[in-house]
Amino acid sequence: MNRGFLVAATAISAAYALWPLPTDFSTGTAALTLASDFDIDISAIPNPPQDLLDAISRTKGYLQTDQLEALVVDRGVSYNQSLQNASSLVSLVLSYDSGLAGEPTSISEEAIDDIDSRVEGYTLTVPEDGSAATVKANSTLGLFRGLTTFGQLWYDLSNTTYTVEAPITITDSPVFPYRGFMLDTARNYFPVSDILRTLDAMSWVKMTTFHWHMVDSQSFPLEVPEFPELSVNGAYGPSLVYSTNDVQTIVSYANARGIDVLPELDTPGHTAIIAQAYPEHVACPGATPWATYANEPPAGQLRFANANTVNFTACLISSVSARFPGKYFSTGGDELNTECYAVDESTQADLNTTGKTLEQALDTFTQTVQSVLEDSGKTPVVWEEMVLDFNLTLSNNTIVMVWISSADAAAVADKGFRLVQAPSDYFYLDCGAGGWVGANPSGNSWCDPFKTWQYAYSFDPVANLTDAQAKLVIGGEHLLWTEQSHASNLDSIVWPRAAASAEIFWSGPGGNISEALPRLHDVAFRMTQRGVGAIALQPLWCALRPGVCDLTA
Amino acid sequence: MNRGFLVAATAISAAYALWPLPTDFSTGTAALTLASDFDIDISAIPNPPQDLLDAISRTKGYLQTDQLEALVVDRGVSYNQSLQNASSLVSLVLSYDSGLAGEPTSISEEAIDDIDSRVEGYTLTVPEDGSAATVKANSTLGLFRGLTTFGQLWYDLSNTTYTVEAPITITDSPVFPYRGFMLDTARNYFPVSDILRTLDAMSWVKMTTFHWHMVDSQSFPLEVPEFPELSVNGAYGPSLVYSTNDVQTIVSYANARGIDVLPELDTPGHTAIIAQAYPEHVACPGATPWATYANEPPAGQLRFANANTVNFTACLISSVSARFPGKYFSTGGDELNTECYAVDESTQADLNTTGKTLEQALDTFTQTVQSVLEDSGKTPVVWEEMVLDFNLTLSNNTIVMVWISSADAAAVADKGFRLVQAPSDYFYLDCGAGGWVGANPSGNSWCDPFKTWQYAYSFDPVANLTDAQAKLVIGGEHLLWTEQSHASNLDSIVWPRAAASAEIFWSGPGGNISEALPRLHDVAFRMTQRGVGAIALQPLWCALRPGVCDLTA
Repeated sequence: MNRGFLVAATAISAAYALWPLPTDFSTGTAALTLASDFDIDISAIPNPPQDLLDAISRTKGYLQTDQLEALVVDRGVSYNQSLQNASSLVSLVLSYDSGLAGEPTSISEEAIDDIDSRVEGYTLTVPEDGSAATVKANSTLGLFRGLTTFGQLWYDLSNTTYTVEAPITITDSPVFPYRGFMLDTARNYFPVSDILRTLDAMSWVKMTTFHWHMVDSQSFPLEVPEFPELSVNGAYGPSLVYSTNDVQTIVSYANARGIDVLPELDTPGHTAIIAQAYPEHVACPGATPWATYANEPPAGQLRFANANTVNFTACLISSVSARFPGKYFSTGGDELNTECYAVDESTQADLNTTGKTLEQALDTFTQTVQSVLEDSGKTPVVWEEMVLDFNLTLSNNTIVMVWISSADAAAVADKGFRLVQAPSDYFYLDCGAGGWVGANPSGNSWCDPFKTWQYAYSFDPVANLTDAQAKLVIGGEHLLWTEQSHASNLDSIVWPRAAASAEIFWSGPGGNISEALPRLHDVAFRMTQRGVGAIALQPLWCALRPGVCDLTA
Repeated sequence: MNRGFLVAATAISAAYALWPLPTDFSTGTAALTLASDFDIDISAIPNPPQDLLDAISRTKGYLQTDQLEALVVDRGVSYNQSLQNASSLVSLVLSYDSGLAGEPTSISEEAIDDIDSRVEGYTLTVPEDGSAATVKANSTLGLFRGLTTFGQLWYDLSNTTYTVEAPITITDSPVFPYRGFMLDTARNYFPVSDILRTLDAMSWVKMTTFHWHMVDSQSFPLEVPEFPELSVNGAYGPSLVYSTNDVQTIVSYANARGIDVLPELDTPGHTAIIAQAYPEHVACPGATPWATYANEPPAGQLRFANANTVNFTACLISSVSARFPGKYFSTGGDELNTECYAVDESTQADLNTTGKTLEQALDTFTQTVQSVLEDSGKTPVVWEEMVLDFNLTLSNNTIVMVWISSADAAAVADKGFRLVQAPSDYFYLDCGAGGWVGANPSGNSWCDPFKTWQYAYSFDPVANLTDAQAKLVIGGEHLLWTEQSHASNLDSIVWPRAAASAEIFWSGPGGNISEALPRLHDVAFRMTQRGVGAIALQPLWCALRPGVCDLTA
C-alpha cells in the first residue's frame, strides 16, 4: 500500500476500459486477437488453490460470453482489416514473482488477512506478437486482481475477441486496502442470489469488503442457531431469512472473489425487532410518536444498562461473529436515542441501582461487547458516534466508520482510530429519491440531493487531514440503505455508481471525470453483458463518442 | 366521463388494493374464497371478441399466479379460520348492461375510438354467499376494466385465493379519458419485450394511452419502409430497430389491453439523426458548441423553410402514421432552436427566396404536416411551444401537451385547444438523478428535484383553471425521458410511481396520500408478483402496518 500516491495516474486513451485505473501502464496500437484455443497456463504454480482455478474458469468464461462491442461509433467494424492480420494470443501465464516458500495460500485466505497485510499488486504484460501474456504477483490475491484486469482488455467483433492496444504493460497496486460496499438487508430483504451477483460486480472493480448491515429495527433476517427466535419472530417471513448455510455461501463466494465480509449487528440502537423475541432486552419498543424515540419507525433499543442485556448482547455477538471467518466485526453504534431510555423505567431502575450515568452504562456495555470480539481475535468496527458523541473506552484497534459527514473524519482521526470513509454526503446511494415516511407530501430524503457518480468521484479521502490523520484512513465505501430498495432496483441504484469509490480508493483521488466517463461506460456495459443491471449514464449516442456530450463540447 | 367529479372518493379500508380508486363502492367483512373450478362465464355474450377472451384468460392466469399474501403483519394467517368456513365463488359472469345491437366491438376497436367517445364504466358485484359475481358494462372496454378490478380483489394464503371484504359492490368510471405514460425510445433503446411488459403494467392501473416518443436527435430506431436509410443509418445498431412487425406487435398488444398508442415523430427540432440518412434536410448537424444550437447533443433540426424538406417530412409522417391504427399522432414541436437556423446558409437562402420570416416558414411547415394527418383522419398532437411560442395556424382539433410547467395549461386553454397535462414539475420520472452531460462535476438534472409519487399525486389537473379552461383538459401522463435509463432500470424508475397519475386521472385529484399509500404498496407488490420490477416504497415493516410509519404516527 502506497498512501503517498494520491494523484491521478497517467492519462489513457479514452476507449480503454480499465477500472480502477492501474498505477502505471503503457499501451500500444497493435491489434491482437484471442486464439480460439486460448488458455490460461498455471503450470508454474504448484498445487494451485481451488479458488484460483475457479477464478481462471470464470475469467475464461467472461472472455467467451462478454461479447462486448467496442464503444466507438462503428462498434469496431473499422478494425476488421487489422484484426485479419493480427497476431493471436494463445496463452496467459500466471506465476508468482519470486517463487514460493511452500504451498500457495488461497484467494480466500488472503482476502481475510489483516487489512494492512493484504498484497494485491500484480504486473500484467500482453505482447503484440502473440507470445504469451503474463500476470505475475507476490500473492494469489494479486494474481486474481491481474486476472480481473486481463478480463477488461477485450472487445468483440463478429465473434473475434480482440484488443487494438497491444502491447500492454501494467504495474498495479492499490492505494487504500479497504474498498467496500455496504448493503442493508433489514429494511428490505434481498435474496441470496442478489447478494452473490453483487459480490461478482464488486470483484470486477476490485473491491475488498462487503459490509453487510444484516439486521435493523425493522427485521432480523439472520438465523442465529443459539437464539432461533430472533429470526423466527423477527424476519419478514420464514423464507426471508439468511440461514447459517446461506451465510456460509455468501462468505465463501465473497472470499473466493477477494472480498472480505464485514458483518454488522447494529447495537444498541436499531434493535427494536429484537423485542419480538426478547422483549425484556428492549427499551421503548414501538413507542410513539416514533420520531421522538428513534430516527425511523419503529422505536426500540437494547437496554444496555441492564446486566442481563449486556450478557445477552455479548452472547449474541459471540455466536454470530464465530460464523464469519473474517477478522472484522461491526457492532454498529449509530443514532442512539437517549429519550428512549429516559422513558424506560427498567433502564432508569438499573441506572439507579448501579449508580451509573447512561454514558457510563454504555461504556460498560461497549467494553464488554468489544472484549468478546477481541477475545476471539476479532477487530471491532463502530459508527462514528461511538467515538465522537460519547466518552467511551474503546479498544485502540477499533476501526471507525465516518458516515454523518466527511467533515467528521478529522475528529475521528484525532482520537487515534483508523477510519473508513463512508460519508453520507458523497457515498449514500439512496439519497435524493424523496422521503419514504408516510403522510409527508413534500418529504425529501434527509440526505438530498442524489449523489451522482461524478460527485462521489470528486471525493478526496484525505482532504483537510494532516499527514498523521491521513495515515489512519484505510479506505472507504459506497452504501445502500434500503428503505426504498429491494431486488428490483438493487443493480440499478448501485451500478455503475459505486464503481466511483472503487477507483478512488484503488487508484487514488483526483481523477478527471471527463477522462473517467468513457471508462465508466465500459464498466456499465461490461456489467450488463455479465448480467448485472447497471444503468445507462448517457444516451448511447454519447457513450460511443467520448467527450462529444461534454458540457462545453 | 364526469369532469365535475374532482374530489376524492369515499375512504376505504386501508388493506384494500383497488387502484385507481373506483367512483363508488362498498365492501363487507365476510370471507370468500375462489373455488378451484372458478371460471369466468361469458355465455351472455354472443360472439365474444378474441381480445376479450384473451383478457379473460389473462385474468384467470393472474388469479392463479399472483399468490400475493395480504399486506398485514401476519400475512393473512389469522384469516385462516374464517376462510375454512367461507363460501366459495364459482363464477364471474360478464354481460353487457343493456343488451347489444349486433356484434360486440372488441377492446382493441374501442381502445382507439375518439378519446371523448370511449366508454370505460362498469359495475362489479361479488356477493358473499358464493353466488355468481358479475361485471356489467355498456362496452367491451368497460368489461375489461371490470375484469382488471376483479383481479385486484384477491389474496393468497397457503394456496387459498380469498377476500375478506365480501360482499363487494363497485360502480366505476373514469374522470378523464387520457391517462398515459410516455416512453422515449431514442436516447436509449428498449427491447420490444420491455415495452410489452410496460403495457401490461399500464393496463393494470387502467391507463389508456402509450405515448411513444419513438425517435429523437440521438437515434432513429423506427423502420420506415419508404425511407429505410433512416433506421439503417440512424438506429444504434441493426438489432436496435423497431421493425414494422414490431410496431404491429406493440400496437396490437396495447390495443388489446385498452391502450391507444400515440406515436410521436418529433419535428422540426430533435431531428439531428435524420442527417445520417438525409443530410440535405437537416440544419446545423453536429454544430458546436452543441449547447448553442440544441438543448442536448447533437445539434441538428429539419430545414422547415425548405419546400423539399417540408415535402419529405409530410411524406415521412404520412408513411409512419399510416402504420398506426389510432387516430392521434404527435408531430412534436418542442425546444426549437432558432440559432441553428441563423447559421444555416441553406435556410437563410430559402427565407430570402420566399420572403418569409422563420415563423411564417414554420407556419407553412406545420400546416402542411397537419394537413397530411387530417387528410388521413388523424388528429394532430403537439408540444406546448407550438401554441405558446409561435403564432401558427393550427388545426382547431389539435391536442396540446403541456410539459414545461403546469402553470402553462391556462395559456394553452386560452387558445382554445384541448390539452394533456404532462408537466415536468410533477410527472417527469427522470428528474433528480444528477446531470448526464459530461464534464459537469456538480451537474444536476434540469428538472430537479426527483418527482415523488406523493408529489405527483398532489397534482390537480384543473388547478387555477376556469371552468371553460378546465373542460379542455382531457387527462395527463407520466413521462420517461431516457438519457439515464434503459432496460435495466425501466421498471424501477416507472413503477409504482406512474400509478399516481393513473389514479388522479381516473378517480379525480384530491386524494389523501396516507390513504393512498397502502393501496399503492398493493399495486407495487402485485406488479412484482406479475414480473414487473416495481420498487419498494418503504421497508416491508411499514408496508405491513398502514399508517404506523407516517410522519406523525
